[in-house]
Amino acid sequence: MSSNPIETGKKLAAYAAVDEHITADCKVIGIGSGSTVVYVVERILQKPELKHLIYIPTSFQSKLLIIEGGLTLGSIEQYPEIDVTIDGADEVDPQLNAIKGGGACQFQEKVVAEAAKKFVIVADYRKKSSNLGVEWVKGIPIEVVPMAYKLVMRSIDSKLSIKPIDSKLRMAINKAGPVVTDNGNFVIDAHFGAIDRPLDLLREIKLLTGVYEVGLFCGMAQMAYFGEGDGSVSTLSA
Amino acid sequence: MSSNPIETGKKLAAYAAVDEHITADCKVIGIGSGSTVVYVVERILQKPELKHLIYIPTSFQSKLLIIEGGLTLGSIEQYPEIDVTIDGADEVDPQLNAIKGGGACQFQEKVVAEAAKKFVIVADYRKKSSNLGVEWVKGIPIEVVPMAYKLVMRSIDSKLSIKPIDSKLRMAINKAGPVVTDNGNFVIDAHFGAIDRPLDLLREIKLLTGVYEVGLFCGMAQMAYFGEGDGSVSTLSA
Repeated sequence: MSSNPIETGKKLAAYAAVDEHITADCKVIGIGSGSTVVYVVERILQKPELKHLIYIPTSFQSKLLIIEGGLTLGSIEQYPEIDVTIDGADEVDPQLNAIKGGGACQFQEKVVAEAAKKFVIVADYRKKSSNLGVEWVKGIPIEVVPMAYKLVMRSIDSKLSIKPIDSKLRMAINKAGPVVTDNGNFVIDAHFGAIDRPLDLLREIKLLTGVYEVGLFCGMAQMAYFGEGDGSVSTLSA
Repeated sequence: MSSNPIETGKKLAAYAAVDEHITADCKVIGIGSGSTVVYVVERILQKPELKHLIYIPTSFQSKLLIIEGGLTLGSIEQYPEIDVTIDGADEVDPQLNAIKGGGACQFQEKVVAEAAKKFVIVADYRKKSSNLGVEWVKGIPIEVVPMAYKLVMRSIDSKLSIKPIDSKLRMAINKAGPVVTDNGNFVIDAHFGAIDRPLDLLREIKLLTGVYEVGLFCGMAQMAYFGEGDGSVSTLSA
């Protein structure tokens, strides 16, 4: 067990979710993205009986985890029905609504979550929240088509029923200019403070011309695992 | 005047719209895509006083029309406010709702239409319709992200309040496999028959995960020009 409580939390959540939901009876598994998912794949690799399953990635990072682990990489076009998808999140409320997209992978993550019979979230204790927008204050990640980013910025300010406190184009590190997603798009982070009705906000934002996908996952997860730094795991079910 | 009544109609509509809406006082003009827009640019080039304006394209085709005409090509990032956008359509109803995307350019067209203070449609007489979905029976063009096309096909069949009569991935000619749009996506053509509430259907489809843009333009056009084969032009205003 790592002595870092955050890493401990991530690992505990990931291991518990794999142990409970991924069995040799499964056929197709969706693999999320981010630092907690590294422990999901680590746990899968410890179980030889999970070696024959098909794994569907949600990003380049996730694809590399699958390939480097020697697992069988599958395509969502060939396997549109997934048994279980396990993924991280940036913030999760008691109804299992989540903010995702700190790693800019929310589009593929949403496709693979939506294709799954069961969608399970794994996270460390910091991600559990009474209300979306309270803990994760970097804003909702909104993936936008590059040519429309100015139009979307204007629309976020003028067309939504709630006004953002702040919204900005996410800039890259180790690259000049904005972050470019695995899908070739930009990301706007729009912070609204505490979000009362996340599904309504998701819909309003997705309807804006130029919006590719929104990092709000509402009513999608069946279960969430949160690892505490002390070695315990708490769960939430929908 | 061409002896082909369809070409005559396109040209008449395009010329009338340019004459009425594009003046030397304008600064930035949006140029749509498709066969009728060729006549829009043709008319602009006949007027030296329109030479100094900035022209924003909606596709590669439209960009080439601007460049080959020797006009000044502008970018929507630099000119997010457009005075007038003129574009074609596949079908237009009496409220000026339109089906667009027969040429697979609906995304950029919608961005450039939405950025314009005035959006004007030009078309030949065949495009005027009492009810969307009655004249243009190829279906509503839905641009989708390639990895999600199967998910979207399933969602179109299972998640909408009206069922499609038919929906299919648009296949390319002069290229193996599906059409790829200027934005690198696929197109699904979904035919619903007569569409009673186009704005509701547009929203339902845009909310599906994997949908990039929908070829339904509702409440966007201020005016439409329809050229008849006999040399007359009819108009509709919102």
